[in-house]
Amino acid sequence: MSAYRFAVNVTPKPGILDPQGRAVERSLPHLGIEGVSAVRVGRRVELSVDAGDEGEARAVVERLASELLSNPLIEAYEVERVAGTTGVGG
Amino acid sequence: MSAYRFAVNVTPKPGILDPQGRAVERSLPHLGIEGVSAVRVGRRVELSVDAGDEGEARAVVERLASELLSNPLIEAYEVERVAGTTGVGG
Repeated sequence: MSAYRFAVNVTPKPGILDPQGRAVERSLPHLGIEGVSAVRVGRRVELSVDAGDEGEARAVVERLASELLSNPLIEAYEVERVAGTTGVGG
Repeated sequence: MSAYRFAVNVTPKPGILDPQGRAVERSLPHLGIEGVSAVRVGRRVELSVDAGDEGEARAVVERLASELLSNPLIEAYEVERVAGTTGVGG
């Protein structure tokens, strides 16, 4: 068994209202920042999975992402493998 | 000028309490998911920057990340270049 580290990036689907993104955009002039647009605010969940191989670990993450971490009606997610693999034997 | 798309990943610093991460961990047994640990919940902010080159665009994103999108006392951020570059002339 090894521990695999992943990130799940959850973002509002295109066309879905994103009030946090709009709030960021409205703050930009106060900071004197120009040229920034299309701001979308989502979540990033990082986690470790103990599994026999990376494919098995990824399947667990996919299930978690679709059933717990995102709302499929309004959010999209992508699973990303990140550094931090720890072999714990085997 | 071109539009460069970036993501800013904001995560709780190591050692900082993460109640959302703990909530996810406590939900796992109800879903029948085993082997998942070290869950950390942060934010992912995606944005486009119009700038003369990628370095200039990245500097804007770094400033935004440190001054508006993260709380440096308790959160770390990393800036990531993502797909979706749109040349808009020049």
